[in-house]
Amino acid sequence: MVDTAPVKSETSAPATPGQPHRVVIVGGGFGGLYAAQSLGRAPVEVTLIDRRNFHLFQPLLYQVATGGLSPGDIASPLRSVLSSQKNTQVLLGEVRGIDPDEQMLKLKDGETVPYDSLILATGSAHHYFGNDHWEAIAPSIKTIEDALEVRRRIFLAFEKAELEPDPEIRKALQTFVVVGAGPTGVEMAGAIADLAYETLKDDFRNVDTHDTRIILVEGMDRVLPPFDPSLSKRAAKDLEKLGVEIRTGTFVTGLEGEKVTIKTGDHVETISSHSVFWAAGVRASSLGKVLSEKTGAPCDRAGRIMVEADFSVPNHPNIFVIGDLAHYAHQGDKPLPGVAPVAMQGGKYVARTICDRLKNKTTPPFVYSDSGSLAIIGRNSAVVDLNWTKLTGYPAWVIWALVHVMFLIEFDNKVLVMTQWMWNFFTRNQGARLITGRDQIKSDQAFMKQ
Amino acid sequence: MVDTAPVKSETSAPATPGQPHRVVIVGGGFGGLYAAQSLGRAPVEVTLIDRRNFHLFQPLLYQVATGGLSPGDIASPLRSVLSSQKNTQVLLGEVRGIDPDEQMLKLKDGETVPYDSLILATGSAHHYFGNDHWEAIAPSIKTIEDALEVRRRIFLAFEKAELEPDPEIRKALQTFVVVGAGPTGVEMAGAIADLAYETLKDDFRNVDTHDTRIILVEGMDRVLPPFDPSLSKRAAKDLEKLGVEIRTGTFVTGLEGEKVTIKTGDHVETISSHSVFWAAGVRASSLGKVLSEKTGAPCDRAGRIMVEADFSVPNHPNIFVIGDLAHYAHQGDKPLPGVAPVAMQGGKYVARTICDRLKNKTTPPFVYSDSGSLAIIGRNSAVVDLNWTKLTGYPAWVIWALVHVMFLIEFDNKVLVMTQWMWNFFTRNQGARLITGRDQIKSDQAFMKQ
Repeated sequence: MVDTAPVKSETSAPATPGQPHRVVIVGGGFGGLYAAQSLGRAPVEVTLIDRRNFHLFQPLLYQVATGGLSPGDIASPLRSVLSSQKNTQVLLGEVRGIDPDEQMLKLKDGETVPYDSLILATGSAHHYFGNDHWEAIAPSIKTIEDALEVRRRIFLAFEKAELEPDPEIRKALQTFVVVGAGPTGVEMAGAIADLAYETLKDDFRNVDTHDTRIILVEGMDRVLPPFDPSLSKRAAKDLEKLGVEIRTGTFVTGLEGEKVTIKTGDHVETISSHSVFWAAGVRASSLGKVLSEKTGAPCDRAGRIMVEADFSVPNHPNIFVIGDLAHYAHQGDKPLPGVAPVAMQGGKYVARTICDRLKNKTTPPFVYSDSGSLAIIGRNSAVVDLNWTKLTGYPAWVIWALVHVMFLIEFDNKVLVMTQWMWNFFTRNQGARLITGRDQIKSDQAFMKQ
Repeated sequence: MVDTAPVKSETSAPATPGQPHRVVIVGGGFGGLYAAQSLGRAPVEVTLIDRRNFHLFQPLLYQVATGGLSPGDIASPLRSVLSSQKNTQVLLGEVRGIDPDEQMLKLKDGETVPYDSLILATGSAHHYFGNDHWEAIAPSIKTIEDALEVRRRIFLAFEKAELEPDPEIRKALQTFVVVGAGPTGVEMAGAIADLAYETLKDDFRNVDTHDTRIILVEGMDRVLPPFDPSLSKRAAKDLEKLGVEIRTGTFVTGLEGEKVTIKTGDHVETISSHSVFWAAGVRASSLGKVLSEKTGAPCDRAGRIMVEADFSVPNHPNIFVIGDLAHYAHQGDKPLPGVAPVAMQGGKYVARTICDRLKNKTTPPFVYSDSGSLAIIGRNSAVVDLNWTKLTGYPAWVIWALVHVMFLIEFDNKVLVMTQWMWNFFTRNQGARLITGRDQIKSDQAFMKQ
């Protein structure tokens, strides 16, 4: 095993002359999928490997977690998205090893996949800052399964409260703590408030859903830390209007059973809650570590690969890293943020770079086109920073909705999903608030076998 | 504990005079829900208990199992369906005991629920005829979780086949066995054929989806045994046209690993298949046994309660059993079939009976209005028996679709679901073909923690 592999030729000719250049993309998120789509008509052979068989429209995952949409509404089978690209194959598999010398990937089941150019786009996973045992208590919202588990817990908490005679326990069941006030945490807190105070208000007989407490905990001094402070201020105001209690400058120091311990400065408080959700931290996918070990590529603290200006790995011009797995610090004074547009633009740029190289053309440097950032707060409120202007409240909500509708339609023609979603919005109908999961039926099966 | 409880007065006055009559309904399927809705304006207090928080539109569950619809599309939260009925409360709970003397139900968590009138509508569960260990190998299609597991297996089988170099294993991965050719089995076999030969045909590079084998096994001498023989014949012809192999007069005698052993007369055959699905038998919910022990009510072989002509339990006029849990033999020469219309009409009748008793009125005898039976075979084909006429092929399919659309719309205003579904039909898009489940992500999490 070597730490740094020999530099490959920039043109990365295929192993067998005459064979098309083999581009292997790992990860079918925004970065990997846009790279694959950009290579659809290129004279290359594309292989997209993902461990899931679908692309997930992550920005709407919080809607699954709160019962507004079904998983199928925000996921598109990778095969059907790419089925018309004749040069592309999709493999369901998990990459476990990278051999830059042999230009080969190793899959979990032992199979190997050779490449001429490699694009790694495996994104990020949640991160509990060394408290991995917190995961069982406070699930995060990164995968479909996470979202369904969160959905199960939210609706089960209300159901249990309806049956609970003890007012203290009922209070704990109706207390929701969201850890982390980035876009996901803010969306979750706002959506739970909407649910409790509006959607579910007539559904229970013993529970007054207005007694529900939603506490949003953030370590930084304001919600939505990556946004402009004026927008953070407005978001906080809107959240409070929705009924969310905000605790900034506050850290979770303990999570045990149905108790959350939080610390604000020197003040320590213990909150009884049956539903704690984690939206606090992400770290790069584990493949970053594997790549770093094999190529000597430097990583940042979050495990992201410090890439070159063309997204390639230092000394390995035919290995590219894009999206949340990449630390790209060649533009502006901060690394590019871990958002969908950065991944998509990275994917397109890398696809172009590979094509240009095959034609011995030089690719102009990457320029990130930042069209702004947005976060939804509630049913009528969002914050949008378009760089040239800032919007809040209802106008921002309209922009937020339009952007998401456009993406979904462009991407998978999900016109009907969006119609359904708008319908739900206007009727306050959340049809997907099902409590599902194997645990839910296991006990009865055991009983039936008695 | 007594085997037969004393006969209660027919008027079933509430325990406390002046208090409204308490009707407790167990089960939120077609029977229980229609009973609850029929009591919506009655001067009674209604409690609906179910262990799930949603009503499931079971007739379309096979669509979830084959990726056409999402669970949320065919499930409606019971609370929201009943939220406008001010006299009704919904409890999420599992009934474990019945005390007819005290007029009390016991829930799993120890809680008790008193009733004046009781309606049991807990339906049926799958049945492996004494081979319960087959369940892990051959899941059935009765719950949302079952359907998602079946969906996972179907799509995973194709994914594995795409990666499999051994042609024998690939053949086994592309072999699907459906056990039981009642409506569910026929629907499943037809839907898998549609998937393999149409929807997925362009999605794979190494797998030829036309090599897929779908084998439908039935113990009786024809498919759709409850239907008229002429319709069974036509259904068999349509299934064969779709590419389904039919084995009638055939029983499964062994299920182990990836091998199914079937026996037709004296001929024994072993089929290699990674995907066996069970649509062969149901038995009554376990609450039937509990009720029978407590009241001495006779059961049939499938565990259903033999009810009186008004659906009450012998000697317990204030306990009613409806739907699949009831054996109703007071009309025609056979017991009423276990289909949705029987449950719905039973629910309505029992609701009326309870109201009439409170007014000291006599309820006319129950008459089942049989509007016919229908089963879908594939995208353009169904069989429909309207009693006065029989339809097959495309016209039958149109009737089938209209009936289901009407039910869904009447029931939960699911206009958009049906639009989506029609859209899928015409575009052959099956957006919900996701492979999900905790197992799917566990291995990567373990890997990431390394």
